[in-house]
Amino acid sequence: MAENQFSSRLLENAINEFAKLPGIGRKSALRLVLYMLRQSKEEVEDFGNAIITLRNDIKHCKRCHNICDTEICSICANPKRDETTICVVENIKDVLSIENTQQFNGLYHVLGGIISPMDGIGPSDLNIGSLVERISTEDIKEVILALSPTMEGDTTNFYIYKKLAAANCKANITTIARGIAIGDELEYADEITLGRSIINRTPYQETLK
Amino acid sequence: MAENQFSSRLLENAINEFAKLPGIGRKSALRLVLYMLRQSKEEVEDFGNAIITLRNDIKHCKRCHNICDTEICSICANPKRDETTICVVENIKDVLSIENTQQFNGLYHVLGGIISPMDGIGPSDLNIGSLVERISTEDIKEVILALSPTMEGDTTNFYIYKKLAAANCKANITTIARGIAIGDELEYADEITLGRSIINRTPYQETLK
Repeated sequence: MAENQFSSRLLENAINEFAKLPGIGRKSALRLVLYMLRQSKEEVEDFGNAIITLRNDIKHCKRCHNICDTEICSICANPKRDETTICVVENIKDVLSIENTQQFNGLYHVLGGIISPMDGIGPSDLNIGSLVERISTEDIKEVILALSPTMEGDTTNFYIYKKLAAANCKANITTIARGIAIGDELEYADEITLGRSIINRTPYQETLK
Repeated sequence: MAENQFSSRLLENAINEFAKLPGIGRKSALRLVLYMLRQSKEEVEDFGNAIITLRNDIKHCKRCHNICDTEICSICANPKRDETTICVVENIKDVLSIENTQQFNGLYHVLGGIISPMDGIGPSDLNIGSLVERISTEDIKEVILALSPTMEGDTTNFYIYKKLAAANCKANITTIARGIAIGDELEYADEITLGRSIINRTPYQETLK
């Protein structure tokens, strides 16, 4: 769509702003803006303010770097969670994904990214120092490295492993299991994953739990 | 996703607001909100304010009801446009679509909807009175009814036609051509459209223009 076709600067502005969002093109942006115009002024203000307030007032948990509204996030502050297990994740989206499984009752540590020289992200850009500090000051029995099984994830895992070892970490360091995803067909699995899934085979009875 | 899974009320609020938009589910909403969190405070404020300002400050053209920032829209105010031809459309999206074709140089009249008893929209909810007034006061040579060829569109066309006739309208009243869309295959065309396209066949030379 041409830039100067709109009869309103305000309309054009709003469309441009929506079109900046990932996955939203100019046609979708127009559709969303026209939807907004049909809503009441109060509803539109609620929408805009919710996003502005979020960006301005959001905090990061001092302990695990998860996002929250208070100094300490609701997971870290929950007395029912197991404080001796820390699950190390890349970002808050991964916290949500793991929480959704309802299979983990420990605490998290959000790195805020993974080591990626291509994107100019080095270890000092991540919350690794505070992880090492937690290991030293808290009573941690297990550190689960739950990063994506990619080149960058593996590099970050290895870096953290070395750092923890250098800090005399007594906790067990584990990673999430790698293998064939449930529902996947063997013939389409890549060789490395399939090979790893044979090496790390588990007793059949454990799959029945 | 469960409602109480988020560690932040602000995050949840923003996700809920995005998820209200048409075509955006809770997963997309989360993705958009996390994208927002990565932008600068200024960028997020620009986004929110662009939408709030649009809703609060938008005006409708006093002549054609198109949306604009001033009393009269840029199309109506453009001295190069043909003021004797009015194209009647359902909404501002249709104005944009027709403008994009670059095949129309007249003015518009935006009805703001079409007659649809199912949705409780009657003639009095539409900008039909002001259309009749324009016909009486302006020097109009042609009124193009450019509504969708649906039951509701045809009903609205007929209602407007009757109103204009009752107001002693001297202008030609035309509708957009109905027929087989360019690129469509004849065998998949519905019978009514195909039948109409035969009745309204046009001289071959006209298609060469």
